[in-house]
This record gives sequence, structure tokens and C-alpha cells, in this order.
Amino acid sequence: MQISAAQLASLLDGTVEGNSETTVSAPSRIEEGKPGTITFLAHPKYEDFAYTTQASIMLVSKSWEPRQPVTPTLVRVDDVYASVQSLLKQFDSVERADGEIHETAIIHPEADVSPGASIQAYTIVSRGAKVGAGTIISSHCHIGEDVIIGKQCILSEGVKLARKTVIGDFCKLHQGVVIGSEGFGFAQNDAGEFVKIPQIGNVILEDHVDIGVNSVIDRATIGSTLLRRGVKIDNLVQVGHNVEIGENSAMAAQVGLAGSTRIGKNCMIGGQVGFAGHLTVADGAMIGAQAGVNNDVKEENSRLIGAPAIDYGTFWRLFATYKNLPDMARTIRRLEKELKQLKSEA
Amino acid sequence: MQISAAQLASLLDGTVEGNSETTVSAPSRIEEGKPGTITFLAHPKYEDFAYTTQASIMLVSKSWEPRQPVTPTLVRVDDVYASVQSLLKQFDSVERADGEIHETAIIHPEADVSPGASIQAYTIVSRGAKVGAGTIISSHCHIGEDVIIGKQCILSEGVKLARKTVIGDFCKLHQGVVIGSEGFGFAQNDAGEFVKIPQIGNVILEDHVDIGVNSVIDRATIGSTLLRRGVKIDNLVQVGHNVEIGENSAMAAQVGLAGSTRIGKNCMIGGQVGFAGHLTVADGAMIGAQAGVNNDVKEENSRLIGAPAIDYGTFWRLFATYKNLPDMARTIRRLEKELKQLKSEA
Amino acid sequence: MQISAAQLASLLDGTVEGNSETTVSAPSRIEEGKPGTITFLAHPKYEDFAYTTQASIMLVSKSWEPRQPVTPTLVRVDDVYASVQSLLKQFDSVERADGEIHETAIIHPEADVSPGASIQAYTIVSRGAKVGAGTIISSHCHIGEDVIIGKQCILSEGVKLARKTVIGDFCKLHQGVVIGSEGFGFAQNDAGEFVKIPQIGNVILEDHVDIGVNSVIDRATIGSTLLRRGVKIDNLVQVGHNVEIGENSAMAAQVGLAGSTRIGKNCMIGGQVGFAGHLTVADGAMIGAQAGVNNDVKEENSRLIGAPAIDYGTFWRLFATYKNLPDMARTIRRLEKELKQLKSEA
Repeated sequence: MQISAAQLASLLDGTVEGNSETTVSAPSRIEEGKPGTITFLAHPKYEDFAYTTQASIMLVSKSWEPRQPVTPTLVRVDDVYASVQSLLKQFDSVERADGEIHETAIIHPEADVSPGASIQAYTIVSRGAKVGAGTIISSHCHIGEDVIIGKQCILSEGVKLARKTVIGDFCKLHQGVVIGSEGFGFAQNDAGEFVKIPQIGNVILEDHVDIGVNSVIDRATIGSTLLRRGVKIDNLVQVGHNVEIGENSAMAAQVGLAGSTRIGKNCMIGGQVGFAGHLTVADGAMIGAQAGVNNDVKEENSRLIGAPAIDYGTFWRLFATYKNLPDMARTIRRLEKELKQLKSEA
Repeated sequence: MQISAAQLASLLDGTVEGNSETTVSAPSRIEEGKPGTITFLAHPKYEDFAYTTQASIMLVSKSWEPRQPVTPTLVRVDDVYASVQSLLKQFDSVERADGEIHETAIIHPEADVSPGASIQAYTIVSRGAKVGAGTIISSHCHIGEDVIIGKQCILSEGVKLARKTVIGDFCKLHQGVVIGSEGFGFAQNDAGEFVKIPQIGNVILEDHVDIGVNSVIDRATIGSTLLRRGVKIDNLVQVGHNVEIGENSAMAAQVGLAGSTRIGKNCMIGGQVGFAGHLTVADGAMIGAQAGVNNDVKEENSRLIGAPAIDYGTFWRLFATYKNLPDMARTIRRLEKELKQLKSEA
Repeated sequence: MQISAAQLASLLDGTVEGNSETTVSAPSRIEEGKPGTITFLAHPKYEDFAYTTQASIMLVSKSWEPRQPVTPTLVRVDDVYASVQSLLKQFDSVERADGEIHETAIIHPEADVSPGASIQAYTIVSRGAKVGAGTIISSHCHIGEDVIIGKQCILSEGVKLARKTVIGDFCKLHQGVVIGSEGFGFAQNDAGEFVKIPQIGNVILEDHVDIGVNSVIDRATIGSTLLRRGVKIDNLVQVGHNVEIGENSAMAAQVGLAGSTRIGKNCMIGGQVGFAGHLTVADGAMIGAQAGVNNDVKEENSRLIGAPAIDYGTFWRLFATYKNLPDMARTIRRLEKELKQLKSEA
């Protein structure tokens, strides 16, 4: 794609400063910008690069005042981040279903694949499964019996969906995702051996849910593990059986949720956070990276961090005091000494 | 499956309260119970739902005394949890080997697959591998050379077993499990570059071992990484080279064990726990979620938590004091002031 | 392979003590040594086993003085560890590319696979991809469009490389590795819903990079996620979009790096460490297991541990004081009492 500064300004509702006929064919980061690319200055931290970048066009804020001369043609916009996002879409090569079923795909005669869905090489679609229109199932996937997949979904390579999993519309399951696997539910017999509790439920993902690479969503013991509309989950995350996650909640990589925990809507969970089982977390909670949540979070919009997780402000106040502990210990020893002295004098 | 209250009572050695001809066809959770389903009240925390559930039958304890009228037919049993477990088995659809080898499975002529084992589509069984009777190997698996798999095992989709791995009887390897991979063993040369130490050992799983989705068991440098009878491992767990795990020990999701660590038998390890390498952990240890174990655990039945992991009781006592740190700091400042005052008066 | 004590001594530049015609065919660990195997005593911790091992040959240091009689023939060498490593190579069965393309491999006519590369069963190589000489791509892999793989690489089973990924020479990608996946980049719209920011960059691995089982390297939003020469990454690690890792840095299992963080060269990162996004970590940093790095690490060769990560020495000093907190609280209460007493007397 070739696009000129003038076209960009028109597209992004901006103004051109410099040669409006400059054209670019790819985006670049400001510190790596090469001729023929468009870069952007969104964060003041990167301003120094604005004076050295070799990009041909640079998106900047309407209010930005350069401290030195700049080489690229400027396109000034109201919101640089929003413009970049909209721009990236122009350069993105979006995969679209071509309605092809690869000759090596194994589709059970009793599966129902909508015309317009694509099934790639070496993928298996089992008896009773349904695949919606416009959905792409990449290579090496396994779609179990009676699985239902909505329309316009993308399943990347190697996704495995176990029996009776339900996936809504516009979902994105990245490489190696496993959904509907048997949860970790055991009872101990009299000999202390673990005996599996049958896990007969399933997993339901509503619309617009994203699951990151190699993440796992276990099916419910009874009923359904449920991820509501718009939930976004990063890579290598573990979601235990009977968990429920509310609308528009997002979780960074390597989070773990033990069984039956319920996360509210609009929650933001940092990387490597762990949740104990059977908890309830109120809407709008923000949980800092590596936190260990071992109690219900009752108040909406709580901010927690630490293991065990406590209020964010309290955590940092305590940590500041903690770093003074050796000082405190010294003061105590001095006080002891002075007091002893004083007593002996009295 | 249709089953009546009378049949259930007979099956579970219980008594019926209400219409003994009520029939149900599926289990449900008490908060979601619908007509035609059987639910259960096992934990007092859920008692409120007992008065509102629409399930047709409810399993309760013989000793339970409702505070309000209940709608479902009751089946009273001695142990609700045990009855639910036994009941779920009735509703579970257990996969059984059908002895079929899918036409796309690639079985090396020198592999030995027992009659009665099932090998599903696009799975590869290499030279010298042995597969026991009644074992199911699902689609997209790779069984390396000279691998031995016992009888009545289930390997879910996409399991990869490297050369010389040994799997006992009745084991369950969930989707994406990798066993026998090359461990992370490097030496640094004079230039500070990492050079691989050859990893020529293997992995042995004894009988009744379960490994969760996308978990990894690295092979030994020399000898065998060894998981003993009845070990249960959850999803996304990392087991390093030359680790040994004792009988009936269980580990929750995302645990990591560094090389050569030995875990005793009957240990229970919480989610996201990390173990340093070359440690020995005594039998019966219980390690709380997210703990960081960096020393041998010498005493049997130890309970540890925290990073670094310390005694469970000590951890919580220390944490209680920790939360008072700002108070403590204030008290010290006050004491200092008072002492100074007293000294100036003296 | 059969090798005698005399041959070993010659190979390792050592001396024989005992029957120089003793032969062995495999290595063993000292505590498990069986007749016909060679074992070694490298660490004093294992010395007791030296007097009981049944191995036929034992490698020991030239300076080692047994406290008791030993059974095996001794081969004395200068550096036991180095000798073991060199020896293991003799027993290792290194996989070499045989130049075969399995009949079930799907190679796009516009892909360029060098003669001498091996492509195993059910693997897919897409349009525009290039595979170097001597490279092995195992079964069930997916090589996306325009991917470039250098020479002498090993891709184990089930590796997935997304479009435009670049892999250098001599790289090793273990089972289930995913490279070039779409990063976790979202913006929230006015309704609070997450909207994907297009991720149009790629991933570049330089030469001699190893990636562990089921680890994930996300592609850059713009530009490249970059792992430099000699980087070694263990299993189940998450590397976010636009991360850069310097030469010869190593990371243990389950580490997570959030987007745009830059790690210096020669860094050593322990297991389960987490890095926040947009950080810079100086060369030679050593980060202890489970640390949570939330700030730039500015000084070279820093040693950090803890969450939040702080200087290693400080961490352990603080922790020692922390364990005395209840004592400290008691002392404060006593001082308060004594002071009160003193004041009332004054």
C-alpha cells in the first residue's frame, strides 16, 4: 500500500506540515524509522527520536511544538494513539475466510460447516459439531463432538476444543489453545489415593472473546465454565473448572484461576496473578501483576496488589516502611540502651 | 439416562422424601437447577439456594434440617459429596478404546500396538514404540521411538512423547502435554556462551499418573525423571530434568520444579509454586499457592507458604505484624520523643 | 557404544586407577550406578555414594582422596564436570537431517526448502517460506507464509511459526513453541470495550537461539520482537510484543516479559520472574526466581530478587529483620511500659 501525506491527513482529519506529496508504504517505530515509512510521536519520552528519525512522515499531536527542526513531513492530528490504531488497520493484512475446505481436513458427515467457513489442512471436525459462516479454522485443529462455533471466528493453528464447547461470534482463539479440557477435580479415597471426580460440564465463550496462545479453559464439573462477552485473555493462562468471568474483563499472561472463582465485569488482571478457588471478585477490580488473591474482593473498582493481595495504596505504604526495618531495629536498640541508662541513673 | 428418586435412593443407600417417582436426566448446580435435573446441597454456604432451586431432586445429608419448605424431592444420604461423585459417574460418558486405527494414523511397521488400542487421525507412532491394550491415543499425537505406553491409558489431542519415554498403566495425558523434552542444561564456555549439555536420559511415569494440559516433563540428563504411582499434575506445570515425585503427590496449575528436585509422597502443592533445583521435600508436605521453596523441607507433613517459603503459621503471624508496621513506626517515634523529654527533664 | 577405561583416560586426558580394560556402555548417576556403566563424582555432597555405587568406572578429580576403599575402576581427570559433558556427547544420539520430505508434508510450490533439510509427517510449509540446509522440521509443525528459517535448525513436534517470522542458523525450537503470534494489544473504546490494535510486525531470532517447550514469542505491533544471538529460553515462557533480549541472556521456565521491555546481554533470569512492560534491564543482570521487576535496572551486573525486585543483599537483610518482627513488637511494648513507669516515678 502506498499512501501520501495529503491522503493521510484527509483520512485522519489532520493537517500536513511539509511536502504533502510524500508517500509511505509501511509504518515504523520512531527509533527505527526508515525512508518510505510513517512513524509517530505519541509519548514525550520518545521526543528525542523525533529529531533524528529518518521516517518520511511523522504523525504528531496538533499541539506539539518541536524544540528543534524536524526532517519528516508532519501530519498533525488530535489524538496520535487513536490515529495510529486506525492507520495500522490500513497496513494490516486481515485473514478472511475463503470458504475452502482443505482436502486433508476430516469433516464428519454429521458435522455442519456453514458455506463460507474455511477449514485448513489436517484439521478434524467431529460428529455433531457446527461451524458458523466466515469462521476460519486453521491447520492441525481438533473440534470435538457437538462443539458449536459461531460466525466470523478465527481459530489459529493447533487449537483443541473438547466435546460440547460453545464458542460465540467474533471470537479469536490463538495457537495451541485448549478449551473444555477435564478439570483438576479429585477426591481422596481411604487409602489416600486420588480418584477423579467426573467432569461432565462444558465451557461457554460468549461473543468477542479472545484467548491467548497455549492458554487452557477447563470444563465445569457440572454446568458451564463461562467467559462473557468481550473477555480478553493473554497467553499461557489457566482457567479452572466452573470459573465465570464477567464482560470486558482482561487478563495478562500466565494468570491462574482456581476452580469456581467468579470474576466481575470490567476487571483488569496483571500478569502471573493467582486466584484461589471459590472466590468472588467485584466489578471493575484492578489486580496488580503477581498478586495472590485469597479472599473475596467485595468492593467495586478495588485496586489490589501483593501476595496475599491487599489494597494497592496500603501495599506501597507498608513496603516503604518495610525498607526502613533495619533503621527501625537500630532505633529500638538505641532506645533500649538510653532507657536502661536513664533507669540506672534514676 | 432417566433415573427416578426411588432408583437413586436404592443406588446411593438413601431415603426418599417426597414423590419417589420423580425422574431426572442430568445433574445441575444448586444455583442453576432446572426441572428434570438433580442437584445437591453439600456445603452450608449454598443452603439459601436449597429453598429456591428448581431442580426436581435434591441430594441432602440425612441430618440436614431445612429452615423453610423445599420444592424438590429430597434424597437423603450419609455422605453427600461421595454420593455426588458416584452419581456423576452414571452421567459421565467415558471414552473407551474401540480398537480402531484411523487410516491417516502413521504406525511404523516396527511399532507394537496391542489389539484393542485406538489410534486416532493424524497420529504418528514411531519405530520401536509399544502401546498397551485398551489405550486411546487421540489425534495429532506423536509417539517417539522406543516409547512404551501401558494399558488403559488416555492420551488426549496433540500429546508429544519423546524417545524412550515410559508410561505406566491407567495414565491420563491431557491435550498438548509434552514428555521427554530436552531439559534446560547448559554450561558456559570461556566466551560466556551457553553450550548444551547432552540430555541422554528419559522420563518414567508409573501407573495412574495424570498430567494436565500443556504441561511439560523434561527428560533426565542421565537416568530418568520419575513420577511415581498416582501422581496428579494440573495444567501448565513445568517439571525439570531429573526431578522425582513421590507416590500420590498432587500439584495445582502452573507449578515449576527446577532440575533434580525430589518431592516426597503424599505432598500437596498449590498453584504457581516454584521449587529451586536439587532440593529434597519430605513426605506429606503441603505447600501453599505461589510459595517459593528454596531450601530442603526436612520435616514430614510440613506446611509452608510464602516466598521464600516458611512455616505456614509463622507466615501468617509475621504478616499480621507486618500490617501493623506503620503503627509500630509511629510508636517508636513517640517513644523517642518521650525519652528525649524525660532525659532533658532529668 | 562400548568404551574401556584406557580409552576414556586417553580421550579425557586422565589416568586410570584399577583395571584399565574395564568397559562400559552407558553413563549412570552415582546413586543408581549399575555394572557396565560409567558414573562420576563431581560434587562432595554425593561422596557417600562413591563407596557404594556399582558402576564399573567412576570419573573423579585428580585431587580426590577416598576415605574408604572404592569398587569401580577410577579415571582421574582435571575437571570432572567438563569431562562428563564431553563424555555425554559420545553417548548422545544426535538427530541429523536426512534430506527427506515426508509424503504427507504439505510444501507450497512457492516455498523454498533447501536440499538437505528434512520435513516430517503432517507438517505444512506455506507460500514464500524458506528452510535452510540441514534443518529438521519435525511432524505437525506449521510454517507460515514468508517465514525464513536458517540452516542446521531443529524444530521439534508441533511448532507453529506465524507469517514473516525470521529464524537464524543453529536455532532449536522445542515442542509446541509458538512464534509470531498476535500480541495482547488492545485499546478501550468509549463503551469500555477492548478493541484490538493491529499487530503488523514480526519476530526475529538470531543464530543459536533455543526456545523451550510451549513457550510463546509474540510479534511486534510495529517492527520486530528481537532475540539476539545465543539467547536461551526455557519452557512455558511468555515474551510479549516488541520485547528485545540481548546476546547470551538465559531465562528459566515460566518467566513472563510484558510488551516492549528490553533485556541486556548476558543476563540470567530465574524461573517464574515477571517483568512489567517498557522496562530496560542493563547487561549482566541476575534476577532471582519469582522476582517481580517493575522498574528499569540501570546498573550492569545488578543482582535483584523479590517482588517488587530489589537488590539481592538488601532483600535478605530485610527478610532477616522481618523474621524478627514479633520480637521487635514485644520489645517496643516493653519499652513503652518501662517508659511509662519511669515517667510516673519522675
